[in-house]
Amino acid sequence: MSSIKIAVIGASGYTGADLVRLAVRHPDIEIAALTANTHAGKPVAEVFPHLAGLDLPDLVRNEDVDWSGIDAAFCGLPHGTSQEVIATLPEHIRIIDMSADFRLRDTQTYAQWYGHEHLAPELQKTAVYGLTELYREAIADARLVACPGCYPTAVLLLLAPLVKAGVLVADDLVIDAKSGVSGAGRSLKQNILFCEAGEGLSPYAIGTHRHAPEIEQELSLAAGRPLVTTFTPHLAPMSRGELITAYARIADGASVEAVRAVLEEAYAAEPFVHLMASGTTPATQHVRGSNHCRLAVFEGRVPGRVILISTLDNLVKGSSGQAIQNFNVMFGLAEIAGLEQLALFP
Amino acid sequence: MSSIKIAVIGASGYTGADLVRLAVRHPDIEIAALTANTHAGKPVAEVFPHLAGLDLPDLVRNEDVDWSGIDAAFCGLPHGTSQEVIATLPEHIRIIDMSADFRLRDTQTYAQWYGHEHLAPELQKTAVYGLTELYREAIADARLVACPGCYPTAVLLLLAPLVKAGVLVADDLVIDAKSGVSGAGRSLKQNILFCEAGEGLSPYAIGTHRHAPEIEQELSLAAGRPLVTTFTPHLAPMSRGELITAYARIADGASVEAVRAVLEEAYAAEPFVHLMASGTTPATQHVRGSNHCRLAVFEGRVPGRVILISTLDNLVKGSSGQAIQNFNVMFGLAEIAGLEQLALFP
Amino acid sequence: MSSIKIAVIGASGYTGADLVRLAVRHPDIEIAALTANTHAGKPVAEVFPHLAGLDLPDLVRNEDVDWSGIDAAFCGLPHGTSQEVIATLPEHIRIIDMSADFRLRDTQTYAQWYGHEHLAPELQKTAVYGLTELYREAIADARLVACPGCYPTAVLLLLAPLVKAGVLVADDLVIDAKSGVSGAGRSLKQNILFCEAGEGLSPYAIGTHRHAPEIEQELSLAAGRPLVTTFTPHLAPMSRGELITAYARIADGASVEAVRAVLEEAYAAEPFVHLMASGTTPATQHVRGSNHCRLAVFEGRVPGRVILISTLDNLVKGSSGQAIQNFNVMFGLAEIAGLEQLALFP
Amino acid sequence: MSSIKIAVIGASGYTGADLVRLAVRHPDIEIAALTANTHAGKPVAEVFPHLAGLDLPDLVRNEDVDWSGIDAAFCGLPHGTSQEVIATLPEHIRIIDMSADFRLRDTQTYAQWYGHEHLAPELQKTAVYGLTELYREAIADARLVACPGCYPTAVLLLLAPLVKAGVLVADDLVIDAKSGVSGAGRSLKQNILFCEAGEGLSPYAIGTHRHAPEIEQELSLAAGRPLVTTFTPHLAPMSRGELITAYARIADGASVEAVRAVLEEAYAAEPFVHLMASGTTPATQHVRGSNHCRLAVFEGRVPGRVILISTLDNLVKGSSGQAIQNFNVMFGLAEIAGLEQLALFP
Repeated sequence: MSSIKIAVIGASGYTGADLVRLAVRHPDIEIAALTANTHAGKPVAEVFPHLAGLDLPDLVRNEDVDWSGIDAAFCGLPHGTSQEVIATLPEHIRIIDMSADFRLRDTQTYAQWYGHEHLAPELQKTAVYGLTELYREAIADARLVACPGCYPTAVLLLLAPLVKAGVLVADDLVIDAKSGVSGAGRSLKQNILFCEAGEGLSPYAIGTHRHAPEIEQELSLAAGRPLVTTFTPHLAPMSRGELITAYARIADGASVEAVRAVLEEAYAAEPFVHLMASGTTPATQHVRGSNHCRLAVFEGRVPGRVILISTLDNLVKGSSGQAIQNFNVMFGLAEIAGLEQLALFP
Repeated sequence: MSSIKIAVIGASGYTGADLVRLAVRHPDIEIAALTANTHAGKPVAEVFPHLAGLDLPDLVRNEDVDWSGIDAAFCGLPHGTSQEVIATLPEHIRIIDMSADFRLRDTQTYAQWYGHEHLAPELQKTAVYGLTELYREAIADARLVACPGCYPTAVLLLLAPLVKAGVLVADDLVIDAKSGVSGAGRSLKQNILFCEAGEGLSPYAIGTHRHAPEIEQELSLAAGRPLVTTFTPHLAPMSRGELITAYARIADGASVEAVRAVLEEAYAAEPFVHLMASGTTPATQHVRGSNHCRLAVFEGRVPGRVILISTLDNLVKGSSGQAIQNFNVMFGLAEIAGLEQLALFP
Repeated sequence: MSSIKIAVIGASGYTGADLVRLAVRHPDIEIAALTANTHAGKPVAEVFPHLAGLDLPDLVRNEDVDWSGIDAAFCGLPHGTSQEVIATLPEHIRIIDMSADFRLRDTQTYAQWYGHEHLAPELQKTAVYGLTELYREAIADARLVACPGCYPTAVLLLLAPLVKAGVLVADDLVIDAKSGVSGAGRSLKQNILFCEAGEGLSPYAIGTHRHAPEIEQELSLAAGRPLVTTFTPHLAPMSRGELITAYARIADGASVEAVRAVLEEAYAAEPFVHLMASGTTPATQHVRGSNHCRLAVFEGRVPGRVILISTLDNLVKGSSGQAIQNFNVMFGLAEIAGLEQLALFP
Repeated sequence: MSSIKIAVIGASGYTGADLVRLAVRHPDIEIAALTANTHAGKPVAEVFPHLAGLDLPDLVRNEDVDWSGIDAAFCGLPHGTSQEVIATLPEHIRIIDMSADFRLRDTQTYAQWYGHEHLAPELQKTAVYGLTELYREAIADARLVACPGCYPTAVLLLLAPLVKAGVLVADDLVIDAKSGVSGAGRSLKQNILFCEAGEGLSPYAIGTHRHAPEIEQELSLAAGRPLVTTFTPHLAPMSRGELITAYARIADGASVEAVRAVLEEAYAAEPFVHLMASGTTPATQHVRGSNHCRLAVFEGRVPGRVILISTLDNLVKGSSGQAIQNFNVMFGLAEIAGLEQLALFP
């Protein structure tokens, strides 16, 4: 197959850079344009020295891209900006958006959580939620795929099949999430300075994190009724990695074994989602840099309780890797193309 | 007051070293003996270079201590060994044990969780559980104080008053705990190597951690009936610090405000336990090296749910600092004596 | 003695915060004012949560301090601003400046390295260079003490006595320096984000670091002739700590033993500077949070070469601790007053 | 080309694991056997969870490998053991040894630095020193390639061409080296525990590190006369990465430009060694996980001094990646085969 030409819009953030890392080695991708308005004119290596020596196009402004020969755009812009820019793209461009802009199906909910009216509500109606394992068929035909947030990816791969199968009491799920610092992006904020985030751990945005409505949207769809969840993210002193510890009650008639069986069946044929052997504990460092997500199920001491674990690299399976995976589905490529990097450990 | 002479039994672990760090600057303590069987004969600074230049006695074997002039012993030995050694101490020695050996009031429970019969069951009957804020009066009169584990300290300071006050549905508490690596001690284990624990996060001992029965023992006492909890510890890539995120339902008739009020009242006069202002988030790095514990209460998105946070330094308030605090109570000293170090940040 | 009232000017940086940490527990200090123009009106704990609960004055603007009852000012402002503010202080205020503004004795050199004319050249003439161990007598009588930079402190404690004693070939000293990230301050810069500085090490400002002329000024004074040095700083992924590895040739007639002897004699009576036993290696983590500096001397494989090591905590002995030490000297207090904190390890 | 069958001897260390990470995705390699005597019988994923799901052979004992169908062996055993095991391999096996056993050309020097007589002195004579860029032709024909140590790789890529070209005063080179903790391997040692190595930096093995004779051997060959160097390694709190800061005097008649020109020419056509643009600073985090080495040249403040920087990932270009590179040369493959992974940043 001849190469598919892509643009990466917003290539100066961590998500954009990791997309480039993966795309450069993708057998069917040619990177035709990289945009970063504040760094326009610079070589990529000036912004990300680890990407030196790759014969990449220099960074340009979004509006300076010649879209005529380009097939697809990956968008790594901040929310708000993404919808504006995406709305201007020519019709022939297929879009994989890694921002939050098209994740919420209901533009009212968007306005409520993001503080402004949605600027492309018609486009929103056409967006497909890009959790590959759940929406593979719709993704294949979509023009615009809204890749899930990193937390929702980890949470939904773990909980959506279980909620759908009815093996959990879904009305009172407790989701304790831990993330590495790269989840906060590359913008200059005091709390992500080395001296502030290092050697420390803290919860944040308790009850107010914007990934909560996204998680609830999808779990509600899985349940067939509206669900609200308890979702508490924490910032951990590592660059990459995300770990979800979810607490649920097993539904009447179900069992820990039934819970395991649902996940086993859901992911038996999946290349990137793995249920770990009983008693084995996942760790973020064992999926670092890879597109893999590992799940585990543990019986609790409280009868009827189950403890559910999910882990992934927030920048890969939680963002850029999943974006490539969706791209592969959209263009009829092998789903693992360009995603075979093994985890980097230690 | 003339100095109280102490021995530190098991001074070559992190707990012992942090006890020494605090005791050296305690206005009423004289360190008379330091033991460490495998390092007997060495100066402390050879085992802990940060303790050089302090005019401390060299390390000796447990059996080589002359107990005649000593008033109190802090014991930082591993469980199992502690009870053996403590059983041999002269009657006039008051003991602050930082091991797990005398924490469980029921020796059957001990045998079940620690895998061997308790070796000093009579001594166990005399032990007082050393959570200072809850058992101050009994501690004052005790000969043997069993300092709580680091997780139980953080959990119980947060939950015990609430369970006792009946403002939570206590039968189904979910406790998600995160700890720095020093909680695992200084012994040579692969999972605590820098390259293994660094830049990664993982749960461990799900449903099987030995601090669970200790937590349940005390929460059951607070509730007046047997409670079982869901307790999941995680290892985080930092040396010190512990953070508890607990999830509970508010009891009928209670409210988030009532929950806050209980903690506010419980700790209004306490020097080391602080309820943070509403909306303020605690972080482990802000109590690092200090004897302080910070608590916070958040309302969840799920009606009736409350999210409760507790944080402390596992080696200080979670171990050696609390031991000194108990010592102060036992000897009628100001409770803050020797514990006024501020947190070291960054 | 009744308390000495101090103000901390520029209390919202790491240097200011660490000064507060030490001053709060200093037996002879009362903190009368804390300034931070961009945070004026806030309680300190809002800017530095680890300093909560200490009954400190709120942050005010520099110009809003009532200096009438104040005896001394510690200044933690950025260079340039410091000299402006210090020039306005009433004559009765004794000043311990932790900025770079009065370190260079020659205002021409200042202008060359800091890019602007010195704004208080007359004041500069009165400043005493605040390396306590070298200039103790002059510091005692000074109104304005210019505390050395963190690198110069570590370098000069190591090399100045040796250069003065003539045991090294001083014309070609190689100084390889490694610092934790807190040395870069709390301002928002991309290279000190957790994800940028974490898990990585790099040199910076090779041949252009502003601590070079300061080092050379003092070594030249020690040598009695102008010296130029090779000074290469590196950023290491830790919050605190500084380590100098200096390479020198031993002067004709001298020896490794002579080198050791000079340091031994220079620091035999010093409370905070320690020559380590032969063969023992210093480590930054063993002085973390303390005011101690550790030195070591090693013979190299190349005949006539000596490898010299110096380590300290850049925020304490390299800044705030040394400032307190100078304050103690200036006010006739015990030099160790308020500086007895032991290193926090691990 | 049909696959080349390899065995990895000593697959339970970090070097072995990183070799497996690279070999699994190498287009021309089939992993036929993995050995690890202490873990024989286990699946790899039990020892290295990040290598799960790869359809790898289980770990076996060295003596249980059926060598008949195998073409090449990578050896990641500790020194001493390597030479014993390698001596027993069938003649048709080509060997890429990542241990220290065959690096020193002179077995007397080996005995002196490693504390025992060399056990395979005849084999030693046939070994080629595996610094690919310097010895590519000899490597192509070798049966046994001794891959350099991580420090020597970084040092020699930087200094060997310069010494050979005569642009440096080679008799008094100062080499200050900093390494991540993975360089110390996966064995259980106290100094590499997270709590010991984290948030700290220290020199070690000053004047006694076993990589010194290896560096001197090769620099002496480049110089055409015996050289001794000053080599000081430091342990930095990161898992991967190595940075060399070398200090040299420029030879009479040469210049900083001449130094740059030598490196530019030496590596113009090299895929993995890069001289950075003037004024640009290398950082370990920008080559993490990749096989790249970055060099830089800086003029010092002392006339005639040059500061030379080299950085690489100690486990990749410093060990397993270079081993694969040598394998590619030995088997006539493209030298970059299996080594195209980009650096993982952040």
